[in-house]
Amino acid sequence: MTGRDGGADLSPPAGESPIIVLVRPQLADNIGAAARAMANGGLFHLRLVAPRDGWPQPRAWRTASGADRILEAAAVFPDVASAVADCQRVLATCPRPRHVVIRTFTARGAAAELREACGRGLRSAVLFGPERAGLTAEDLARADSLVRYPLNPAFMSLNLAQAVMVLAYEWWTAADATPPRTLVTNETRVATKGELDGFLGRLVAELDAAGFFTNREKMPGVVRNLRHLFERAEVTEQELRTLHGVVTELSRGRMRRGRPDPEA
Amino acid sequence: MTGRDGGADLSPPAGESPIIVLVRPQLADNIGAAARAMANGGLFHLRLVAPRDGWPQPRAWRTASGADRILEAAAVFPDVASAVADCQRVLATCPRPRHVVIRTFTARGAAAELREACGRGLRSAVLFGPERAGLTAEDLARADSLVRYPLNPAFMSLNLAQAVMVLAYEWWTAADATPPRTLVTNETRVATKGELDGFLGRLVAELDAAGFFTNREKMPGVVRNLRHLFERAEVTEQELRTLHGVVTELSRGRMRRGRPDPEA
Repeated sequence: MTGRDGGADLSPPAGESPIIVLVRPQLADNIGAAARAMANGGLFHLRLVAPRDGWPQPRAWRTASGADRILEAAAVFPDVASAVADCQRVLATCPRPRHVVIRTFTARGAAAELREACGRGLRSAVLFGPERAGLTAEDLARADSLVRYPLNPAFMSLNLAQAVMVLAYEWWTAADATPPRTLVTNETRVATKGELDGFLGRLVAELDAAGFFTNREKMPGVVRNLRHLFERAEVTEQELRTLHGVVTELSRGRMRRGRPDPEA
Repeated sequence: MTGRDGGADLSPPAGESPIIVLVRPQLADNIGAAARAMANGGLFHLRLVAPRDGWPQPRAWRTASGADRILEAAAVFPDVASAVADCQRVLATCPRPRHVVIRTFTARGAAAELREACGRGLRSAVLFGPERAGLTAEDLARADSLVRYPLNPAFMSLNLAQAVMVLAYEWWTAADATPPRTLVTNETRVATKGELDGFLGRLVAELDAAGFFTNREKMPGVVRNLRHLFERAEVTEQELRTLHGVVTELSRGRMRRGRPDPEA
């Protein structure tokens, strides 16, 4: 993780992030895709327990899509016991309830727990089982907690790299402060109510001059509805200038053609 | 979605779920993997805009891992405009900020928004761009909102099916009430404080009889520390019975051998 040459910048963020342990993975494609998902979520430490087809395998680099350093730094262990021997917190992902008594987290709960453990300086690991069989009861007995994703119980077939993705995503999100909803405005800014009022006043005056309000009694309601539309849209200052231009141009056209026939 | 023959049960849950629109997808593998991710997260409506290699493609069924009915029901459209023509809410996933003014959600914010829209009976869609290029500015202009995942900005290469997975996961989770942390106990139950106290009293008595407390002054502190360990472990009623058996067996051994040498 200290090299500076080539590849995307995968330097781990400050503080230690959990180790992802793939237990007896079968497909190199999945190992590479898992590494890619780890990089997406800011996880950088990969351990492999007895990969079926040995290690390293070039196919993994093909699906890692640039997360090469994670694969290059991956450590291989013969069994789960040795892979977690230096860890103080071990979570095991397992979709199905078993005959065990164990603390169980959702993916989100696990991410919060891992953030807390890392904040306390604990070395943490998360176990992911092999593609078909999942973790054995013996594997699970090495973990202090279970992680069970809340997902559709009618379709439990979760790809290994997808399972890593969900955890990596929750790990990243647990420390992310992005508001759930924002308005991206780039260079411009949302118009003030005064600016919007100035535009609406002009629009109504031009509409009135064009003979739009044939029923004067209904005019205040129509104006209010137009106002609601523009208020809701969070118009920006730049868009208001465009809208002013639109009104100017349409009014000019009207003046060039003379007042249109109200019956037309 | 109405067929009853074969495959996992993919019937959509009550209420309408959002449509996933893959825009100009390049790889059939990814289309299948996206369908699998959709099934994981309880999404069932797939639309394809101009898939590069045509449709259907057998490779997609291979990676769908049983989510066949989603692929079989997938509808193909020539462009984004026609794919969303019957929709009332369109979100576009896009990792990079562009020169647009648009409401932007996190994946979690988007899931909440989609749940709300579906609750109001609106037909919603989420656009995912092609593997390499992503959605074009023209595609984005068909959407009323953007979805931007909070993920590692130093490694933005997110696989298409992984992108669908994150949204499907958030969609499912938005309606899930699983507590973030539980203790799975299966047939047994967590012991009461009285049961735990009964065991600890017996353990201390046996230890005392065995000459464990050589320093009487330190005894209350040692007992308290033991108590803290067992309190923290959330011992179950079944485990307490095992622990009682352990104490009985060890005490018997001591009695058989006679009192051990305290200096040993």
